[in-house]
Amino acid sequence: MEQAFEADVYAATCPSRVVLDRVGDRWTALIVGLLEDGPQRFGVIRDAMGISPKVLTQTLRTLERDGLVERTMYPEIPPRVEYALTPLGLTLREPLAAIREWAESHVHEIMRARERHDAQT
Amino acid sequence: MEQAFEADVYAATCPSRVVLDRVGDRWTALIVGLLEDGPQRFGVIRDAMGISPKVLTQTLRTLERDGLVERTMYPEIPPRVEYALTPLGLTLREPLAAIREWAESHVHEIMRARERHDAQT
Repeated sequence: MEQAFEADVYAATCPSRVVLDRVGDRWTALIVGLLEDGPQRFGVIRDAMGISPKVLTQTLRTLERDGLVERTMYPEIPPRVEYALTPLGLTLREPLAAIREWAESHVHEIMRARERHDAQT
Repeated sequence: MEQAFEADVYAATCPSRVVLDRVGDRWTALIVGLLEDGPQRFGVIRDAMGISPKVLTQTLRTLERDGLVERTMYPEIPPRVEYALTPLGLTLREPLAAIREWAESHVHEIMRARERHDAQT
């Protein structure tokens, strides 16, 4: 497959840096975690993560555009819409699970570090 | 060690969600990568990643406050200042390397997905 350039996140103009932002986004990490076991409906995702419908809609659209999430509408009454990870999106499961676990395991240390720091300044 | 609460990134008010943002920040991922082999001076970090001095100063201060980076000043003339990962910061090496590698390996797929999407809409 043709690669137009050598990706380097340390190069200021490399598009991989924008991808780094996208992947590191809080909502991406949470949505990928929610979809890792299979498709989910909009309302289930919204309720599981405390996000406004507007922000969830925008985030899902961005993930669709990036080819990470796929939206399927089932012509039922009322119409059922489901979101699922694409094969590309599935490759994010492991790295993002590691980031979520890091945040949960180390939040107490971070909070103690902040308290110590703020007490000194 | 006392844990005041059970961390859950899916709970809207859990501080681990803010930690998730911090860790997912583009600059955090790049700085941790630059410091993973040892301390570096400010100018070396700045030049290696295409960041304005102002943003780098702010980012390093935030990482110091969070206990991820340590700043050491050597009383030389002119004074030498070095930044290094703390033991807590070192635990971020692997998860953030995985994220940087993901961004570099998949940027082409993401760009093709965007082109396909934008051609359809």
